[in-house]
This record gives sequence, structure tokens and C-alpha cells, in this order.
Amino acid sequence: MYRSHNCGELRITDADKEVTLAGWVQKSRDKGFMIWIDLRDRYGITQLIFDEARTDETIMQQARSLGREFVIQIKGTVIERESKNVNISTGEIEVLVSELTILNESQLPPFTIEEETDGGEDLRMKYRYLDIRRNPVKNSLLFRHKVTQEVRNYLSDLDFCEVETPYLIKSTPEGARDFVVPSRMNPGQFYALPQSPQTFKQLLMVGGLDKYFQIVKCFRDEDLRADRQPEFTQIDCEMSFIEQEDILNVFEGLTRHLLQTIHRIDIAQFPRMTYDEAMRRYGNDKPDIRFGMEFGELNAITQHKEFTVFNNAELVVGIAVPEAASYTRKQIDALIDWVRRPQIGALGMVYCKCELDGTFKSSVDKFYDQADLAKWAEVTGAKAGDLILVLSGPADKTRTQLSALRMELASRLGLRKPDEFAPLWIVDFPLLEWDEETGRYHAMHHPFTSPKKEDMHLLNTDPGKVRANAYDLVLNGNEIGGGSIRIHDKETQAMMFKHLGFTPEQAQEQFGFLLSAFQYGAPPHGGLAFGLDRLVAILSGQETIRDFIAFPKNNAGRDVMIDAPAPIDQTQLEELSLIVNILEKD
Amino acid sequence: MYRSHNCGELRITDADKEVTLAGWVQKSRDKGFMIWIDLRDRYGITQLIFDEARTDETIMQQARSLGREFVIQIKGTVIERESKNVNISTGEIEVLVSELTILNESQLPPFTIEEETDGGEDLRMKYRYLDIRRNPVKNSLLFRHKVTQEVRNYLSDLDFCEVETPYLIKSTPEGARDFVVPSRMNPGQFYALPQSPQTFKQLLMVGGLDKYFQIVKCFRDEDLRADRQPEFTQIDCEMSFIEQEDILNVFEGLTRHLLQTIHRIDIAQFPRMTYDEAMRRYGNDKPDIRFGMEFGELNAITQHKEFTVFNNAELVVGIAVPEAASYTRKQIDALIDWVRRPQIGALGMVYCKCELDGTFKSSVDKFYDQADLAKWAEVTGAKAGDLILVLSGPADKTRTQLSALRMELASRLGLRKPDEFAPLWIVDFPLLEWDEETGRYHAMHHPFTSPKKEDMHLLNTDPGKVRANAYDLVLNGNEIGGGSIRIHDKETQAMMFKHLGFTPEQAQEQFGFLLSAFQYGAPPHGGLAFGLDRLVAILSGQETIRDFIAFPKNNAGRDVMIDAPAPIDQTQLEELSLIVNILEKD
Repeated sequence: MYRSHNCGELRITDADKEVTLAGWVQKSRDKGFMIWIDLRDRYGITQLIFDEARTDETIMQQARSLGREFVIQIKGTVIERESKNVNISTGEIEVLVSELTILNESQLPPFTIEEETDGGEDLRMKYRYLDIRRNPVKNSLLFRHKVTQEVRNYLSDLDFCEVETPYLIKSTPEGARDFVVPSRMNPGQFYALPQSPQTFKQLLMVGGLDKYFQIVKCFRDEDLRADRQPEFTQIDCEMSFIEQEDILNVFEGLTRHLLQTIHRIDIAQFPRMTYDEAMRRYGNDKPDIRFGMEFGELNAITQHKEFTVFNNAELVVGIAVPEAASYTRKQIDALIDWVRRPQIGALGMVYCKCELDGTFKSSVDKFYDQADLAKWAEVTGAKAGDLILVLSGPADKTRTQLSALRMELASRLGLRKPDEFAPLWIVDFPLLEWDEETGRYHAMHHPFTSPKKEDMHLLNTDPGKVRANAYDLVLNGNEIGGGSIRIHDKETQAMMFKHLGFTPEQAQEQFGFLLSAFQYGAPPHGGLAFGLDRLVAILSGQETIRDFIAFPKNNAGRDVMIDAPAPIDQTQLEELSLIVNILEKD
Repeated sequence: MYRSHNCGELRITDADKEVTLAGWVQKSRDKGFMIWIDLRDRYGITQLIFDEARTDETIMQQARSLGREFVIQIKGTVIERESKNVNISTGEIEVLVSELTILNESQLPPFTIEEETDGGEDLRMKYRYLDIRRNPVKNSLLFRHKVTQEVRNYLSDLDFCEVETPYLIKSTPEGARDFVVPSRMNPGQFYALPQSPQTFKQLLMVGGLDKYFQIVKCFRDEDLRADRQPEFTQIDCEMSFIEQEDILNVFEGLTRHLLQTIHRIDIAQFPRMTYDEAMRRYGNDKPDIRFGMEFGELNAITQHKEFTVFNNAELVVGIAVPEAASYTRKQIDALIDWVRRPQIGALGMVYCKCELDGTFKSSVDKFYDQADLAKWAEVTGAKAGDLILVLSGPADKTRTQLSALRMELASRLGLRKPDEFAPLWIVDFPLLEWDEETGRYHAMHHPFTSPKKEDMHLLNTDPGKVRANAYDLVLNGNEIGGGSIRIHDKETQAMMFKHLGFTPEQAQEQFGFLLSAFQYGAPPHGGLAFGLDRLVAILSGQETIRDFIAFPKNNAGRDVMIDAPAPIDQTQLEELSLIVNILEKD
């Protein structure tokens, strides 16, 4: 037995016990006649003491030879500490060492392995196994485990069955972002790794499995944006004989359970908002509602005042920034520069200070009098001391710009509090979205998403207006889950394919086996998938997912620790009937 | 709401209730004035009744139009059944239907969807989603879920942390059976899919994570034998600061827990047997100990009797087949033919009948008298009425042959009872095995398996005799798990590489990042992996794993349902910088 206790376990009540501990030397302080060592394992840190007066000289010598991250085992006696450390759970005791065994030596680590480290991102990625020793990363992995256990237990208690769907599946003609896997046994043929188990979970519903879930890796070979990973994890779910309301209830229940278990936060009922309303009130289909700053549409009250910018704009829309009327001209100019950056793309911004004395001071005082500006304040909900910021232009674009500004200001003002959780459902997403490039409608969610019955008549006349039985779960400004009720009858499916521009042959080629399955009695069904990496990060009050993945890849899709991907042997290529042929890029 | 109850839920105590059910039409019986329909969902079957005297004529008509596997929703009243069916939980009631909605039609399914089906293996694979509706397959999937939940809860309660390791990793020079994944973003470079997370779990130990597990897919592109899958699932585990004894205790505890929870079987302590002992007593390192028929070595008592076959054999070994002395000459000849088949490869077999009257009758009566044969019976444990079967030849080969015969006879005699569970540990595996082909020693387990300290001195003199800290968990004649204590210090590792014929450069190339990690304080660690597919099958009293996998592949590695693998588009190949080049095979 390597240890009688772990390094986070001993308390003052253990005083006088003989114990055996094992772990890593985090640091040591040598005062000559006394040496203290912080011994660390997964569970915590215990202080060891070596004292000339009480410790064997050979052991004193041994203790002096220990370097950082040496792995040691000690035997000793638990004693009360003279100067207590209230910051750690073992802070009242130390262990007077009587035996010391070096289990393994260590080279000097490339960065300090403590709560705060001096290691940069790249170095920590390369030595990920050392970074995992640090509390912030280790705790993220333990937290992720706790969340997945809670998810599995909650869904299992509701009779959901976790089913492993295959990883070696088939590439579809539109699967441009599929990772493929050459088959040695079937030369010239390829499997594909799933972008999601969508098809298989629907097949399980056809198979009568009724309530399915799976925590599963998904793969997408796309150009990586910051904080995207080529492999990511979903909590994938599907149910049969249900309506949208049933799905929302089950997964609201799951999310409530997580918030309750993890943060002791009770949220009685999640608000629901239609997609249209979210776009109108927040310019965003995943609004952060931890704070206000809702959009006020000013078109009606800004027209016909000779300010042609507003008169000509499809949308004039503003937000009230709390307690920002005191911003200096320089601060406001900086904000205007911020929205004019190419990433945001606004042409300009109008402001109006709501002074504490009840007067208004705006950048368009020439066109709008105090009574006009009072109406602006009313519509945007601005109070005395607030700053109204107004953008104008084409409706969709302007909303997106103002939403970006709203989020940026909220961050700066500390309104996006990491320990506050504000979930909501966004419902009634549009079924189709127009794609300028191909000149046709695309399924916004996917081609099996069902349209709302009451909107079906619009499919021929105004397809963009048709709403879908599709929903997203939003938490703190992030989409953490999304799904839809699927089409299960062949008439609706045929109509959808027509509107998506698929010929029956194309539909057959792309979705053949699912369509075949649907001919044998598909039940009404629908589902939802959570992005686990992000869910865990957000539940933890953080935004970057990388710390919640044990061995993440960098923005070029590389694992810098193991140096993958990498070339493979010629013989291996030959076995796979492949030749590498890198074309020069123009 | 599609249903008030599921189809397995209603009891006689629900009589008179108005209920709504939904499900599939399994079968219908039309007696003209009355129609009965078996309505099926995941939870069971409920009988519906339509009665001319009590049911609307239009609904009678509708009911007559229903085909097999139509999906319907009904409303009706629970009534007591006239002729009860004691075989199903809802057998005391039926539902008198007052409303009927057809939710979806179905084509006639290609095989009957009942407990027993008329569908052949191929057809059921192609229409797997229909096969999943059948109880045997559905229950296998639900059972698998239950097992994985129990595993996760058991290990989590012991502070194990489930960590997802990456699927897109690096191919190693010896990774001939790796599936590879070309990277679009890194032309000419490939990821590999993991054959196991071995390296990553060791890195997690270096990272201090202490107790890791993961239920994880693994991939191996090998020529498939029956009942192998190119993707399979492991329960992968690793612990730090432990000795072999700790690992055996934890995973014996897990297995005991599964047997207890699932079968209410208590097994106090699993027997342990060394590899040598298992080979001697059963000719097999995964002995089925649900029955006896242990090997008896007859060399000492068969020599110098002028039977040269035995005199010249390295090993003469027999088993006692219970109550088989009555076998006819023809039956025994058939057994001799069986062991002489090329798959077994014995040259011949000697038998000895232990007659009920206490006499012996053998095929080598010419050489051995009754007193000799009585000794055979003593050594093999044969009782009056048993049949002793004896093979001879080179030791290893003969043991393997007799083991195959032992298993075959046990199956035929019904001694391998599916509801009996006999786990045991096999320990002290050889560290190295000699490979005739390459003329050198290979690691029997893997190159990080640690040798037993007391055998280290044999590494230079008699490497084949060195035992490893390696162990297998065997259940009912199947290896369900295996693992080892790893080498964590660089001196032992260097010595191992030398004996495995690796130059330091080769070791660096193949295991580079793990060796680097080991320089920063690797703790003593070890682990184990269970094959989940097989574990679940065996716990369920079955031997084939295919029914326990939702969407299995066939023996050619193909998914015949989705028709994968398949060729991919030329444009996709170009994006991946690949050309397919199928060479003619000689």
C-alpha cells in the first residue's frame, strides 16, 4: 500500500497518527535546521516537516536533494502546525517525516506547477500532462466528470437509454466537412466520422427505443475559429411520441437539475422567447438576459426631423448603457471607433446622455429637442445618468451590430456575472433561410425539421416566413443546446425536399437509408443536442472550452503534445491504396 | 400529449380508466364482430379491442385497415380481459377503443417483428432499425445501458474521474492496424484513431489524476474474425500510487457489484490462479471453471510401457468426461475425428472407459493393465461411468488441443450454464513471448508492463521465464479484462527496450512523448481495461457480441444498413490531397 491517506485528507483530529503519504514535491523551504515541503496529489497539499532535532540526518540530507516534481513517499507523524494556513483544508497540521522514499525523480518542469503558472499557452499545451497537475485544469476535468455523471443519472432515472452509435459511418455527398477514414479491407472506399449521430438517433426512434441519449464525440473538419475543436462532445437526445412541449420540459428539467446540484441555484421556470422577439429585443438569437440594455426601436419617434441618416434607415435602434452618461467625449469616441471596426462595420453611432439633472445632451442636438430625446429615453428605458447609444441602417445588420456593442459594454461594465445563470428557451425559429450564394432556401436546422402546422400554407407563398418546431436552449448568451421536432410523414418530407431544391433522386442518394426506414412506421419524434464542452465551461462560469478538454487541439487542429497529424509510412499508404498528391495552391 | 400510459403499464387496478396509448400494430385478429390488436411500444404490449356492439362502425372500419407496424394512437377504456394472458404484464386487461388515429403507415416489414422472427441474419442487419423493435435486441441494448450506468456509478463513487481522451491521435510506426484520418488542413498528414487510450491514460497518471476511467470506443483495422468489430468499446481504467493487489481489489469489487446488482449473485472472493497453473490445469489462460474436467498429466504413469507414442511425447495429458463411459465406438470415433480436424490438429487420441463395474477399457489395453488405468482415473479424477480422453505431443500444443476438446465437450454436455458465473483472476503472466517469425522477444502485454522484481535477474539469463505484474479477469471462459502495473522508472524502461530489441532512437520515435512525460515525475501506476461488448454479452449469458451493439458491422467490416464504407467524391479526395490507387493483387 503506497499511502494511508491522501494529501487533502489530514485534519487536526488526526494528530499523533502515523501516516504514509505519496505525491509530488510542489516546493520546499530549507531553513538549515528545518525543511518544509509541500507535498501535492490530486486531493490537496500536505506540509511535510523535517527537523534537525527530531529527524534523522540521512533523511535531512535526502530531503535536501529533492527537486520540484519529484515523486516521493513518506512515513511520519501528524502534528499540529505552529503557523496555521487557513487557505487549505490541511492547514492546521503538518507531518513530521521519519521515512522518505524517492519513487521517481523529475527534470525541472518547463513552468511552475501551482495555482498560477508562469507558463504560456503554447508551452502548457505541449506539456499538457504537467498542466493537468495544476488545480485550475485538474478541477475543470473533475467538474466535467461531475456534470456528465449528473446528466447520465438524471436521464437514466427518466428511462432514457444511452446507446452507442457507430463512429465509422458513411460520408454523404454534402458532407464536405466530414473527416474520412480509408478502409484497408475495402480498397478505394472510405468511412466517415460522424458530424453528429443525427441519422442514427432517428433510426433508433424508428426502432422504437423511445428515449435515447448519448454523450458522444462528434467530428467536423472545418476551418477552426478560436475555441472550436475538430472533435467535440455532444449530449445527444431523442424522444418518440412527444411534442415540442415534452422536450422542453424534459431538458429544462435536466438543466434545472444541473444548476441546482452544482450551484444550489433554483430557477422555477425558464423564460421562453420567440426567435422574432429575441431578434427584436436583443438583436441576437442567443441573448444574454443576465442584464437589461434591451433594444428600443426609435424609427417612429426619429423620423421627419431633417436627420436624413435616420430618415433613410430601415431601422433606428438604441440601448441605454447604465450609469454611463458621465463618459467623456474621448470614451464615447472610442466606442464609436469600436463599432466602426471592420468586424462590426457600423458607419457611425449617435449618442444621447441622460444627465442626472433630467436634461439630455446628444450628438444630434441639432435635429432633436429635449422632448424628442425624452422619448428616446422612454423607449430605451434609460434613466437619469444613463447613456443612450443608437445605430441605424438595414434592420438585420444593424441589430447584429448593436447586439455586439451591447455584449461588449456588458462585459466592460461587469454585468456578465460568472456566478449568475439566466437560461431561456428560444422557440419558433424560421424553418428556412435564404442563401444568397446558391440562390435558394436552406434548412436552418436540418432537412428533417418539421414546419409548424399553422404555417404550412406559407410554404408555397412566403417560405421565409414559415416557422419551425425548432428550439434552442440559451444560457448566459451562449446556445448550449438546440433541436427540433422531426418530420415523420412522407408527404411533408417530400414537400420539404421540393422546397430545399432536392429532386427525389438527390434526396434518395443523400438520405436513402433514413427515408427507407421511414417507410416502416416512423413514430412522431424529436430531440435536442447539448454542446457538452461549452455547457461545462459556462456552468463553471467560464467562456473558453479548452480547459475543459483533457487534451485539446490548437487552432490549426494540431495536437502539439503528441505532434499530430503527421505523415504516415509509404507502406501504410500502399496498404490503403492511396497516394498523397499535394497540389500547389495558387 | 401523445399518451397517458405506455404499453407495458396498465394493470387490472387501472380498470375503467380512460387512457391514451400510442405504438406499433404488432398483429391483429379479426373475428368480424370483434377485432383484437396487439399494440407494442418499448415497454410492452397492450391488447386493444374493437367490438361491433360497443365500437363505432367507422372505427371498426379504420381498425380493419391497419397493417402490421402501422403507428397508431388510441383513446379508450381499460377493461378486464375475458381470457387472461399470464405471460405478459398487461395480460389481465385490454383497452376498448373509442378513438383511433393513424400516426404513420408502414410497408409490410421484411420479417416478422416478434420475440422469434423469420428473418435471417443478413436481412436483420440490413433492417437493423426493425430488428431493434424486437425484444431480444431491444432488451440487449437496455441491458448494456444498465451495465454501463452501474459501472459509472460504482467507479465514480470510488472517486474515479471519467476523462475523454482524444480520438484524433497519431499513428505510430508500428501501428499497422491503425485506422488513419487524412487532415484537410494539413495536407499529406494523417491522424490515427486510437486502438486504445493506453498512452493517454498513462499521461493522465503523470498528470496526477490518480484514478481514471473511461467507457470509450477503440478502433482496429484488422482482418476480422467472427465476432470481432472494427470499432469496439472498452471500460478503460488506470490508477496511481497502487500495487497490483489494489487494482485486483477495485475491479474485483466492480465485477462483484455487477453480478450482485444484475443477477443477485454473491461471489465472496474471486479465485486467483497463476498463468502457469491455468495452463497446467486447463491448457488455457482463460479457463472456464464453471465445470471440472481438469487436466491430469499422465507422463509419470505412462512411460516405459512400450507405447512409444506416449514414451516419446513431451506431454501426455487427459481429462475425465463425466458420465461418458457409455459412448459408443462411433461417438468416440467422431470425437477423435473432431480433434484431428486441421483447426485442432491432434494426430490421434487415446480413450479409457471407466466402467460402472469398476473395470477399465481403453484403446491401449495392449500396453496398460487395469492397475495402470486405475492410476489414470486417479490422476484425471475420473469416477466410475466417466470417459478419459488423452492427448499427447509437444506440451504447449497438446494443452491447447485438449483445452479445445474440453470446452467443446462441456458445451455439448450443457456444462457451460449461461446463468452460472465463475470469475477468476489469472496472474503472473510471462513478461515476454518469443516470436518465431522475427526471432526476438515481444512484450506479451505491452512494452510498459513491469516485470516482477524477484524475476528481474532472469532478464539477461532466461528472459522467457520472467513473470510480469500482469493480470486478466476471466469470466466463464472469456477474458473480460486485462491489465498490468506499468514501468515508471527510466532504468527499468531502458532495460525493457533493450530486451525488446529497440534502439534508444527507435524507442524515442515510437514512444517519444510518453518517454518525455516520464521524465517529469511519473508516479507508480497501473490499470486494466474491460472489453465492454463481450462483458455485457457474457453477463447476459450469451456469447455473441453483435446483439449488444446497436449498429454492428459484418465480418467484412461493412455496415450493410448504411452501405459503408463507400467511395467518396473526386473533389473530396482533391481537398484531402489524395489519389486512390488500387494495385492489382498477385
